[in-house]
Amino acid sequence: MITPYTDDYFMKQAFLEAEKALETGEIPVGAVVVSKNQIIARSHNLTERLTDVTAHAEVQAITAAANYLGGKYLKGCTLYVTLEPCVMCGGALYWSQIDKVVYGASDEKRGAGKHKGIYHPKTTLVSGILENECAELMRSFFQSKRK
Amino acid sequence: MITPYTDDYFMKQAFLEAEKALETGEIPVGAVVVSKNQIIARSHNLTERLTDVTAHAEVQAITAAANYLGGKYLKGCTLYVTLEPCVMCGGALYWSQIDKVVYGASDEKRGAGKHKGIYHPKTTLVSGILENECAELMRSFFQSKRK
Repeated sequence: MITPYTDDYFMKQAFLEAEKALETGEIPVGAVVVSKNQIIARSHNLTERLTDVTAHAEVQAITAAANYLGGKYLKGCTLYVTLEPCVMCGGALYWSQIDKVVYGASDEKRGAGKHKGIYHPKTTLVSGILENECAELMRSFFQSKRK
Repeated sequence: MITPYTDDYFMKQAFLEAEKALETGEIPVGAVVVSKNQIIARSHNLTERLTDVTAHAEVQAITAAANYLGGKYLKGCTLYVTLEPCVMCGGALYWSQIDKVVYGASDEKRGAGKHKGIYHPKTTLVSGILENECAELMRSFFQSKRK
């Protein structure tokens, strides 16, 4: 049996969200939250449109997923996000007690992975899924900004 | 001349917010954001009411202050918060580029101060303002929960 429910499949969905961010001039980061192989939240970075530094894709995804589930903890859920979560988002994911976080491109500068103990000990981290595509989207955004 | 605009004065305002959180069964943390000696945002922890782990007093205060100012950066602003910001909130404050963060009680467990480089290098940190009152509020909340 071929299952579509792979990390690649869901990261592509997060990537589609990142492209939506790009179209509106936002730093192109997208996310989805998955529970039981079903996407229960989709989001992309909205810091410019909302004039709010806290409107990262992950923060919105956590809020939306909790709203869907009717509870604030995201146990049994996986977050797919095109860029490594920053410290703020890593801290938010800690509180959510989410099972698994899968990210695409790394963020050497503000990635939560620079610090020890940001994520919840119960959270499994997977990195590098569609890494090149996700990193290329970021690169092209910043290149176009410099022009 | 006696000025009311001291750190103590504004922390008392944050404390009043924390008491509002306590009254509704939330972990009692309150915050205000001050710009030019004027309070431009007030908030308290709403994680239970909103079923949202990201609804910390600081995150709401950042969003509300940016909304008031019409810009996402909180330059020239000071956040007063009754409890030391957690990693998530420290990360959010980093993105806001806020001038100053003043907190009451320390948080040995999840305080952002446990990690180096969470706050923006431009941000001045002040701790221990009304520390005992803020810590006592937290202690009494958790004691009542254990009963």
